[in-house]
Amino acid sequence: MKISQLASRTTKNVAADEISKNAQLLTRAGFVHKLMAGVYTYLPLGLMALNKIENIVREEMNALGANEILMPALQPREIWDATQRWDAIDVLFKLKGAGDRDLALGPTHEEVVTPLMGTCIKSYRDLPLAVYQIQNKFRNEARAKSGLLRGREFRMKDLYSFHTDQADLDAYYDRATAAYHRVYARCGLGDRTLLTYASGGAFSKYSHEFQTLTEAGEDIVYRLPGTNIAINKEIIDDAEAMANIRATHGVAPEAQLEECKAIEVGNIFKLGTRFSDACGVKYTDREGKVQPVIMGCYGIGPSRLLGTIAEVLADERGLIWPAEIAPFKVHLVSLAKTDDEAQAVAALYAQLQSAGLSVLFDDRAGVSAGEKLADADLLGMPHRVVVGAKSLTNQAAEWKPRPAAEAQLVPLAQLVGQLQAA
Amino acid sequence: MKISQLASRTTKNVAADEISKNAQLLTRAGFVHKLMAGVYTYLPLGLMALNKIENIVREEMNALGANEILMPALQPREIWDATQRWDAIDVLFKLKGAGDRDLALGPTHEEVVTPLMGTCIKSYRDLPLAVYQIQNKFRNEARAKSGLLRGREFRMKDLYSFHTDQADLDAYYDRATAAYHRVYARCGLGDRTLLTYASGGAFSKYSHEFQTLTEAGEDIVYRLPGTNIAINKEIIDDAEAMANIRATHGVAPEAQLEECKAIEVGNIFKLGTRFSDACGVKYTDREGKVQPVIMGCYGIGPSRLLGTIAEVLADERGLIWPAEIAPFKVHLVSLAKTDDEAQAVAALYAQLQSAGLSVLFDDRAGVSAGEKLADADLLGMPHRVVVGAKSLTNQAAEWKPRPAAEAQLVPLAQLVGQLQAA
Repeated sequence: MKISQLASRTTKNVAADEISKNAQLLTRAGFVHKLMAGVYTYLPLGLMALNKIENIVREEMNALGANEILMPALQPREIWDATQRWDAIDVLFKLKGAGDRDLALGPTHEEVVTPLMGTCIKSYRDLPLAVYQIQNKFRNEARAKSGLLRGREFRMKDLYSFHTDQADLDAYYDRATAAYHRVYARCGLGDRTLLTYASGGAFSKYSHEFQTLTEAGEDIVYRLPGTNIAINKEIIDDAEAMANIRATHGVAPEAQLEECKAIEVGNIFKLGTRFSDACGVKYTDREGKVQPVIMGCYGIGPSRLLGTIAEVLADERGLIWPAEIAPFKVHLVSLAKTDDEAQAVAALYAQLQSAGLSVLFDDRAGVSAGEKLADADLLGMPHRVVVGAKSLTNQAAEWKPRPAAEAQLVPLAQLVGQLQAA
Repeated sequence: MKISQLASRTTKNVAADEISKNAQLLTRAGFVHKLMAGVYTYLPLGLMALNKIENIVREEMNALGANEILMPALQPREIWDATQRWDAIDVLFKLKGAGDRDLALGPTHEEVVTPLMGTCIKSYRDLPLAVYQIQNKFRNEARAKSGLLRGREFRMKDLYSFHTDQADLDAYYDRATAAYHRVYARCGLGDRTLLTYASGGAFSKYSHEFQTLTEAGEDIVYRLPGTNIAINKEIIDDAEAMANIRATHGVAPEAQLEECKAIEVGNIFKLGTRFSDACGVKYTDREGKVQPVIMGCYGIGPSRLLGTIAEVLADERGLIWPAEIAPFKVHLVSLAKTDDEAQAVAALYAQLQSAGLSVLFDDRAGVSAGEKLADADLLGMPHRVVVGAKSLTNQAAEWKPRPAAEAQLVPLAQLVGQLQAA
């Protein structure tokens, strides 16, 4: 794609109230644009990165045998009354529809999915069953100052699983946990994302969070020494839970836990019968006996993940995208000054594309070399290739992987091969 | 995909208030599930068909050189005040956010996209520019009885183009018109979708609609004899417009127009400076003079298209999906009664899949042949393949294209080739 045809611009103008690093960087790079606090437009490059994250999540959910569906954001009050959550969820957006009907905007979808799957579940033969969606959720947050880390409207993947019994839920929950680890690894956050014991909030007694270590995080977690396991501060005073966790992971009672700041990038719950009871979703077992359906739910926010990747992996020069998330693999910078040079760089752009490489091509006229190179660092594609009069004379291009300090000269004849292998 | 693993069921239970044919059929087939009037969940097969429609639209918009973005549904009142539409749009959902802030749910996005693109547009060099999104829109409809044809929450593709002058807008508008025709052709509606002269509503004096002929349509259009051009009833008394239209298309003043019922499946507008003026979006021309930006906007509702295809192409036995929209090309029905037969059909399923065919496999045990065949007709995949004891003995399968009355026996050795060619 040519930058001259891109419907976004890099900018130095970031609103003074945009205090989070992720939103500052993504705004400067033209990946997102703030409409109001906690509400962002995804511009072309931002949407490409978001779609890559969502497709990773989608692949991992499909591998769990889950069916993708799409549920509405607009929901009638009655379903929230049935679970006693109309007044219990303080971030629930409420509004009036035609005929003065009370409506809500879904901050989560247990109230929709449980009766919906109830229409599919009659007998044990219909179980297990799992569905997920990737969709916009709404939360009326009092403050939304963390950019994409805490949105009022945000992208969410929510998976719901339905089981005959606890053992079947437990086995699926373990498979979902492994799938979550694969998602974070593919998003470049694997080595700093901790499986974290946490409270279950309104859903269950306990839950597991996935917490990515960062000073920008709003959560405090305690890491078990020498592991990628942590404990959320909210349950650190729960002596029984703590003893169990230490025993499970073989951590001595006197071993010091390391206090860290982190951002929650996923949360999974064993719901049990909390929602199936409220919604009357039951099944008939092999003996003909009616039983409650056992549920689990599993959330990942792709827009929060996008913000986390921006926040955590960036350096002082700008964004750094992992290979699987980068909108383009190659950022080709033209420093052409003559028509002949411009033609030579355009030919290289065509050659890279026909070799199957995805290329963002800075073909802008009237923009200085310094500005183009700074933009390449700010935008953060994995490989920068710079071509101008000097390199063309040498039949070469300057190649620099994004995090590297120095570029190296690569003969044009070898460039495609090196980029494909990189 | 195996039907035994599908998170949907065919059903005879359709709510009594679901009076529209499209919603009745899509509900019976398990493609959608109604949460409330005008608000539906897309179940796995429904989402697959919706995604296919959206990808067709996406391809055609990309071919127009438009950049895909994703704007929020949640919008502050201020942007609607700026264009004097906060009180003017009667279907605008209004709600309160944190701090008692007035918010709206976007029924359209001129108020967001115009200032947004204003950040990219400084000079004539930045134009033309076009962006689109595919996203959920909200309209507080008083009545929503037409299933997917009129939703309170629905999928929408909205494209916005920005130009230096009217001639450039006119040329782009013609290209967009051609792209729209391609979308309807690929969705199987090409021969019954009319380019229709219409009023411009709140946007412009006139607009063009794309109207698909159906008795379920809420609009009355008058077709010019011998053409695929029509005039919406709303401008039939506009003598000047009518004279222009007849002259443009060489239709004699005395020629009778044919009155038809139709559903609007697209609408395109030359906005001119209606929104760029309100939002202060200007550019500097070649002479350094500040000029208003000229805009066009172009809408297609993928969920309405899904409903229209269901409504218009179905027969008395159920849905009929065009090749490019069908969730699966082949519906494989197993009538196996023994383990050996079941294994043979499962092997055929694997063979069809490895030949690159997309196959929905009715592997259900304990369901009668009659029910399976009725479901295949109801679900509407383009090709039904039935295999049971009798056909296996003959080393053959029964193949029936969905609209055909009779199946034909095809030797298994030829089945893959015939389906690939079909």
